[in-house]
Amino acid sequence: MKPTLWDLKLNTNTQENNYILSAYFQGVTNYKQMKKYINPKREIWNEICRRPFSDLSEIRKNVDKVLEDIKLHGDDKLKYYSKLFDNYEGENIEVSDSEIEESEFQIADDLKKAIRTAHDNISKFHEMQIIPDKTIETMPGVICTLKNIPVQKVGLYVPGGTAPLLSTVLMLAIPAKIAGCEEIVMCTPPNKEGKIHPAILFSAKISGIAKIYKVGGSQAIAAMAYGTETIPKVYKIFGPGNKYVTTAKMIVSTQNIAIDMPAGPSEVLVVADDTANTEFVAADLLSQAEHDTDSQVILICNSEKLVDEILKKTDAQLEKLPRKEIAKTALSNSKAIIFDNPKDSYNFVNEYAPEHLIISVENPEKYSEKIKNTGSIFLGNYTPESAGDYASGTNHTLPTGAYAKSYSGVSLSSFIKTVTLQKITKKGLQEIGKTIELMAEAEFLQGHKNAVSVRLKDL
Amino acid sequence: MKPTLWDLKLNTNTQENNYILSAYFQGVTNYKQMKKYINPKREIWNEICRRPFSDLSEIRKNVDKVLEDIKLHGDDKLKYYSKLFDNYEGENIEVSDSEIEESEFQIADDLKKAIRTAHDNISKFHEMQIIPDKTIETMPGVICTLKNIPVQKVGLYVPGGTAPLLSTVLMLAIPAKIAGCEEIVMCTPPNKEGKIHPAILFSAKISGIAKIYKVGGSQAIAAMAYGTETIPKVYKIFGPGNKYVTTAKMIVSTQNIAIDMPAGPSEVLVVADDTANTEFVAADLLSQAEHDTDSQVILICNSEKLVDEILKKTDAQLEKLPRKEIAKTALSNSKAIIFDNPKDSYNFVNEYAPEHLIISVENPEKYSEKIKNTGSIFLGNYTPESAGDYASGTNHTLPTGAYAKSYSGVSLSSFIKTVTLQKITKKGLQEIGKTIELMAEAEFLQGHKNAVSVRLKDL
Repeated sequence: MKPTLWDLKLNTNTQENNYILSAYFQGVTNYKQMKKYINPKREIWNEICRRPFSDLSEIRKNVDKVLEDIKLHGDDKLKYYSKLFDNYEGENIEVSDSEIEESEFQIADDLKKAIRTAHDNISKFHEMQIIPDKTIETMPGVICTLKNIPVQKVGLYVPGGTAPLLSTVLMLAIPAKIAGCEEIVMCTPPNKEGKIHPAILFSAKISGIAKIYKVGGSQAIAAMAYGTETIPKVYKIFGPGNKYVTTAKMIVSTQNIAIDMPAGPSEVLVVADDTANTEFVAADLLSQAEHDTDSQVILICNSEKLVDEILKKTDAQLEKLPRKEIAKTALSNSKAIIFDNPKDSYNFVNEYAPEHLIISVENPEKYSEKIKNTGSIFLGNYTPESAGDYASGTNHTLPTGAYAKSYSGVSLSSFIKTVTLQKITKKGLQEIGKTIELMAEAEFLQGHKNAVSVRLKDL
Repeated sequence: MKPTLWDLKLNTNTQENNYILSAYFQGVTNYKQMKKYINPKREIWNEICRRPFSDLSEIRKNVDKVLEDIKLHGDDKLKYYSKLFDNYEGENIEVSDSEIEESEFQIADDLKKAIRTAHDNISKFHEMQIIPDKTIETMPGVICTLKNIPVQKVGLYVPGGTAPLLSTVLMLAIPAKIAGCEEIVMCTPPNKEGKIHPAILFSAKISGIAKIYKVGGSQAIAAMAYGTETIPKVYKIFGPGNKYVTTAKMIVSTQNIAIDMPAGPSEVLVVADDTANTEFVAADLLSQAEHDTDSQVILICNSEKLVDEILKKTDAQLEKLPRKEIAKTALSNSKAIIFDNPKDSYNFVNEYAPEHLIISVENPEKYSEKIKNTGSIFLGNYTPESAGDYASGTNHTLPTGAYAKSYSGVSLSSFIKTVTLQKITKKGLQEIGKTIELMAEAEFLQGHKNAVSVRLKDL
């Protein structure tokens, strides 16, 4: 019998899991090497930059129904959809304290140590981002403050699917705790026995997350957006997910709930010249391509010879990957571009706006100064993307699909709001009053002017 | 003949304009005083917190059509809609340099001085917000940086309608310039002769904005989102607007364009005790109520006597306002609440999450420490909301409709993205490599692990 993804869910034996994965994905695609472009003209950059398109409009109707049902019927419909989509028939939605405690004894010591190391690094990088409140007296007696206040209630979504994303737990929980959010809720889909992978629970435990719910998919987003009898309503929802999760997040984001960012398939762009190690570049391309069939990989080189060498090594490494069928599909949608001129190269990067950018050129720092639009940059031959995915300390929740032109990745500030305060003294109002009156008058807002005039009269 | 709002557009005579406004809005509503609640139970807080509802679904079809048309046909359709909606039949969409230059001679000296003072204060407050890039070595040889990069291309929308919002020009243009955005585009609707109010042009001029277009409404949002032959495409769109503008912003925000925040009708919440000056509070309530018929005003006091006194003064001041008919409609939708217990009072404020919060109680600073959800706070008897609307230095673009639970107002950071960088040395990779390998393996991502393994082998 062909194995199913359920077989992966609680299995901590890596070799066995690799077998399951390769058997599961076998025969997904006809492999084509990445498409090559040599000095493409600017007119076709838009076309090269286009991501694999997914039409979410069909999904939308189904997701709307799930959201509406859970908004109206709470836990009842939540359990109904857990059964329908996750095969979980249990009554118990909340992870118990003992389940969280026991996770510590269900995973290997070296993995626990690794998670702790990653936790330390991510904590350091996000603690560094703490900003003090700032105050300035803009005019004598006019005192203005920018104050940082944590978002009171946040929801973290950790996907299930083909991988137990323990790293996502760390990337969302650590900044939420550092920010000081009062209520942190986490949802993640269980297997059909109602279990969550112990590495996920352990990561949540050491991050200080206590409210964990066994719910996945669009139903989890609905529960956190509207609240149910069991799951508290939150103000902002974070985390990656499949098309259903993404669609649900987009819908609730127009209904008074904030989301971290619009999410899409993951992507990497690697810029390489003759100083790059082609074996490393090939491994980096594959580390992105194995994510999902709609992931995208872009390679930019300054010679066709270099591209060919990298693609050759990519093909060789590909055969050894358990997820090679996924990677093949992703690579078939991917592109290799040769630019003679470095200026074209970084202009193209800024136009593509990749989620991840690996710069393996002679002076990577200098090249990086030209980059305006990307989520995270990996400098030099010894900085693989997977370092940032897991443990360097930077956040791996990053803008995809060219959203890096206007969005930042998740950082401490994603969990913090700034509120302004002002205090004006009597003297201050005498200084600034006339200015306000004149501007209000120019905008035909006599009431605005009057709020100053009644006070000035009183002084 | 009943005057139209067009009569306001270029008129700089305040008295005449006030006459036009009061004639225009006459007989809009049957006035009811604000509804009183005495110690309302928590169960009905949700109902009290509900904002006047507007159904945007009908509008949506029309806006979709405008967006689609301009996406496909650019300037042609832009001019078509300018004629249809703004009565402007001219061919000229771009404001010329000479129009910008001349604005200086078309407004009074004292207004120019006021705009300059506001410009100074807003600049000081937003310059204070500049954050340096930060770097940390999370482990020996693992160097991570958080870098601030301005959004390359931004669009600022300045509404027309019943008031020439010169203050909005300052509030958006100043932080965009301080952030260092490379391309700043401004759109604002002209009058039927194709003129923009000189106070708007002067404010843009002293803020360093050179690309100004005579386009308003959803067609302006479309032009900035997709680009036309004349108007450049931008990555993020800022600014308030009517229902059409708001709907257009919401639609393009799902199409790879970022927006500042979801916008709704303006609102203020005033907390007052016996130390408050009732004349001032009444003026503050009215300064908000005059904005628009769907604005909302909430008053929280610790005694019914105080509420009654404030409402009496509100009624008296109301009669003198040119926009009294607007204010009456807004007040009819507004609420006065008596809470005996200060804890109920600030808990209610956090639940309502007002755009503006005026705290006129004995120790306003102490009260403000309990506040988690609001856009901007005004402390004490001599800090009217209109100070922040125009000139104290804080930004007046703030989250409405309870979005203050998860959104911040516009600040310098709204124009800046953070990008992370990491550089790992050979020694650093030896330190962190095993951690990455173990975590990648736990997530069944062999390719991610391999990107580290090929490098470790090489060391």
